Amino acid sequence: MSQSFDIAVIGATGTVGETIVQILEERDFPVGDLHLLASAESAGSSVPYRGKNVRVREVDAFDFNKAKIAFFAAGVAVTRSYAERATAAGCVVIDLSAGLPVEQAPNVVPEVNGARLADLAKPRQVACPSSSAAALALVLAPLRALLDIERITVTACLAVSSMGREGVTELARQTAELLNVRPLEPKVFDRQMAFNVLAQVGKPDAEGHVPLEKRLVSELRELLSLPLIKVGVSCIQVPVFFGDSLSVSVQTSGAVDIKAVNAALETAEGIELVEAGDYPTPVGDAVGQDAVYVGRLRRGVDDGCELNFWVTLDNVRKGAALNAVQVAELLIKDVA
Amino acid sequence: MSQSFDIAVIGATGTVGETIVQILEERDFPVGDLHLLASAESAGSSVPYRGKNVRVREVDAFDFNKAKIAFFAAGVAVTRSYAERATAAGCVVIDLSAGLPVEQAPNVVPEVNGARLADLAKPRQVACPSSSAAALALVLAPLRALLDIERITVTACLAVSSMGREGVTELARQTAELLNVRPLEPKVFDRQMAFNVLAQVGKPDAEGHVPLEKRLVSELRELLSLPLIKVGVSCIQVPVFFGDSLSVSVQTSGAVDIKAVNAALETAEGIELVEAGDYPTPVGDAVGQDAVYVGRLRRGVDDGCELNFWVTLDNVRKGAALNAVQVAELLIKDVA
Repeated sequence: MSQSFDIAVIGATGTVGETIVQILEERDFPVGDLHLLASAESAGSSVPYRGKNVRVREVDAFDFNKAKIAFFAAGVAVTRSYAERATAAGCVVIDLSAGLPVEQAPNVVPEVNGARLADLAKPRQVACPSSSAAALALVLAPLRALLDIERITVTACLAVSSMGREGVTELARQTAELLNVRPLEPKVFDRQMAFNVLAQVGKPDAEGHVPLEKRLVSELRELLSLPLIKVGVSCIQVPVFFGDSLSVSVQTSGAVDIKAVNAALETAEGIELVEAGDYPTPVGDAVGQDAVYVGRLRRGVDDGCELNFWVTLDNVRKGAALNAVQVAELLIKDVA
Repeated sequence: MSQSFDIAVIGATGTVGETIVQILEERDFPVGDLHLLASAESAGSSVPYRGKNVRVREVDAFDFNKAKIAFFAAGVAVTRSYAERATAAGCVVIDLSAGLPVEQAPNVVPEVNGARLADLAKPRQVACPSSSAAALALVLAPLRALLDIERITVTACLAVSSMGREGVTELARQTAELLNVRPLEPKVFDRQMAFNVLAQVGKPDAEGHVPLEKRLVSELRELLSLPLIKVGVSCIQVPVFFGDSLSVSVQTSGAVDIKAVNAALETAEGIELVEAGDYPTPVGDAVGQDAVYVGRLRRGVDDGCELNFWVTLDNVRKGAALNAVQVAELLIKDVA
């Protein structure tokens, strides 16, 4: 008889939480009891799982002794309020909110540093990095042996779903109002998001850096085990519903062998390399898919020590929910 | 009695051509006769100027002896067909199409290298650079004395109006069809543009570079008189009607004095510096304005030799039409 695991999903009514439930079903994860949890406001609704509608209950009333693995897919505050209780009850915590200190919960992308899970100290807590860091690490990990990377410069074009369901609804609402020439009142974003690009995602500190940009730098260094690598990063918000995209420029100390880079990415796990001349986009390529799409691989216009490329991925799926379930799959191998 | 100049606008029915006519009026340019010209298909329509509708005539039938200054705001092919004829007739040619060799027609942004016009050899031909190069040069020129720039890495997020009126119509049509759940058939773009980001603008060469990216590198070097500066560039197409935006990262050999950078940009001509903590966007800030907007000035997350910022400008106005009229204003000072 095969073993099964009781699962708790905290933030089950959000886009990421719902996608975790969907992926557990798709990948036939050995789920025993499934406990869907949310804040008091969202409790009472239900989420489909294996042909049934599973009722979402209030996280505050939940006895974490009933679960073996807890996915935290709500906000930072929720993780900080309940992760300790889950850990005390013996749950493995998989955090998608960046709510836990990195010394306590290492960032893991299975294809990149999955080995990190084998020597995980108890109590076991694992973090899933931001969608952009996960994607960049996936692409750069197979290139570490080929390139002596000096610096990574990235502009991350984030979909509105990075702000959750509210971001998606708001872009649709704003677009409809503009097309119908009705007055626009921005809500979720601080100004018009439809047909516009916002240069700042989150609240900047005194130096002008936003938390997400700082997080991307540290997560990338951690995932690639390159603690000193220079990373220049700008996160911008684009009027796209789903799918983050990254415009990346890498500087290397030696000339880039573009054929070798292509060959390495063609066989790399979790990556779909689009043929030269073409390029992947969020809509039509990445959205709904498990892979991270890479295209426009090229050296600098006249600099052989520069490698440029474009990355796009489903930020909710591969950038969050799928990564969390892949972490769980590795963890239960050890438990089983 | 003040002098006036007979003007020809080739491509007068396009977004840039129409905007040139509008700006000539706004800035009270001393226009004598105004000749609006276009291809045979567009001839016959009219464009408003000083309360009248000026008929657009066929360029092929035009006698360039009737004009003193000719703005070429149609495509490369039109410039190559008629610029020589205009020059032979003694016209000053101001080209907005990148149709002339750079040895023949230097790129000029008046605030940056307007002095270049004083020693212009005859026959006089001047080029207006791409919107992105003009904007970047405007921001970097006042910083040359402050920073020893080693490398510029830029992701240019281009509005659909960079593809002309057809691009604008196509984004509106695609958006309406998607909101009404009707099937989408892309026309001007090679795939869905609404709620999507396209990573490649134009046809790439064997190395993967598109003409616009190569053009941006050479224009920037020319405008800044920094022929050896390293420039890494990616041009992407975003679902924005008007207003190009640039995400820029500059590497310098010494530490960046961010206060000095702020001070230099606050007083720089043609630039509107947005206060720290805020940021400019195409919609609401740049569109319809003459200035190039700059914001999010900051050093690297932990690298003092990195300067990051965000630029946005009206690509049709400041990025093209206004620059051309400013060039003409400088030129007539010499002629007068």
